[in-house]
Amino acid sequence: MHRKHVKVLEDVLDANGTIAAANRDDFDRAGVTVINLMSAPGAGKTTLLERTLRGLEGMRAGVLEGDVQSTLDADRIAHLHVPVVQINTDPGFGGECHLDANMVRSALPSLPLEQLDLLVIENVGNLVCPAEFLVGEDYRVMVSSVTEGEDKPFKYPLMFRACDLVIVNKIDLLPHLDFDLDRYLHNLDAVHPGVDRLLVSARTGEGIEAWRDWLIRTATREPAPA
Amino acid sequence: MHRKHVKVLEDVLDANGTIAAANRDDFDRAGVTVINLMSAPGAGKTTLLERTLRGLEGMRAGVLEGDVQSTLDADRIAHLHVPVVQINTDPGFGGECHLDANMVRSALPSLPLEQLDLLVIENVGNLVCPAEFLVGEDYRVMVSSVTEGEDKPFKYPLMFRACDLVIVNKIDLLPHLDFDLDRYLHNLDAVHPGVDRLLVSARTGEGIEAWRDWLIRTATREPAPA
Repeated sequence: MHRKHVKVLEDVLDANGTIAAANRDDFDRAGVTVINLMSAPGAGKTTLLERTLRGLEGMRAGVLEGDVQSTLDADRIAHLHVPVVQINTDPGFGGECHLDANMVRSALPSLPLEQLDLLVIENVGNLVCPAEFLVGEDYRVMVSSVTEGEDKPFKYPLMFRACDLVIVNKIDLLPHLDFDLDRYLHNLDAVHPGVDRLLVSARTGEGIEAWRDWLIRTATREPAPA
Repeated sequence: MHRKHVKVLEDVLDANGTIAAANRDDFDRAGVTVINLMSAPGAGKTTLLERTLRGLEGMRAGVLEGDVQSTLDADRIAHLHVPVVQINTDPGFGGECHLDANMVRSALPSLPLEQLDLLVIENVGNLVCPAEFLVGEDYRVMVSSVTEGEDKPFKYPLMFRACDLVIVNKIDLLPHLDFDLDRYLHNLDAVHPGVDRLLVSARTGEGIEAWRDWLIRTATREPAPA
């Protein structure tokens, strides 16, 4: 069979890809840069966002929160007076362990896209399935907490390979853990050689400025400093 | 429609339930007590097992390890000279984010069930889908790390409701976290009132003796102390 035919057939069958492309078109039309933020449960995505959004001067940011249940995260972000929408995968979407393009699409009418420079989509806490579903994002960022151990790149390789940036979070806890940072970074490079990484503590604020710079550079499409 | 007919139809359609029941029969015949151990990635399941199995005198234990990729966990357990089998959900099972009854069944011929008193099935690190799939276990135990935050029972309610015991791990880190243990336990009781819980540090060994007692009592079907 001709290779190209197979490719076309796969594209036709991929409903998620079709909807993700439609989301992309909407994001591009509105001129908004979209980050798909992923991590294991409790790695600190929401705390990181709270820290980050407070000091993002001149950038208009919005957040789409994904959780199986509750509006706890959206409530925390709403305190910052940032446009935020919560998607619960439980009642409407069968308790899914990830966001997909259609869930994101269902939330777009509730967000003032035209008034945003940056939209962060905080995915469901899970290191497996979220990496399998494009939602129309420009960049995929994962938060990897040092409390989770050095072996995680090998155990969840798709997630670590799928991301454009790894935020190594909770580094304030390093003195209290049996965690070898060099070995972790070695493992990370074995799975995704040279991937961008930032060492951060969302709790103390260490490294947050570099992450804000990354976001601003990304949203304004400026090249990285040499 | 008669209610009972609907029930029977559901049972027929639930292939996972059918296979889980077959696993149960095999476990019962062999006289082995089976624990399905679940948690988020990096909550400390394997470190907990390493600590626990070292001192389980008089009990013959085996372990079935579930991961998307790698044999890192099985290698760690094998050092303890305990029968262990690794299931990788990636090559054989489409990268699944959980173990199901059929995956467990596929591993049973590799385990000396007749020579075991206790089998621990360490599930894939994930707080959503593992709770949806019975595998034939007697008890479901979840490990919940204090580094993950107080809100997790509300965000992953099915997991916290599905378990018979919650092991609250990494309590050695409490002095270094903004984590209110009382509030967490309150949240836990709101989601699963009165569920058994043990405060543990797999790293320092604190609380491990109580968890060993729980396992021994459970495997020998002794009633809990009044």
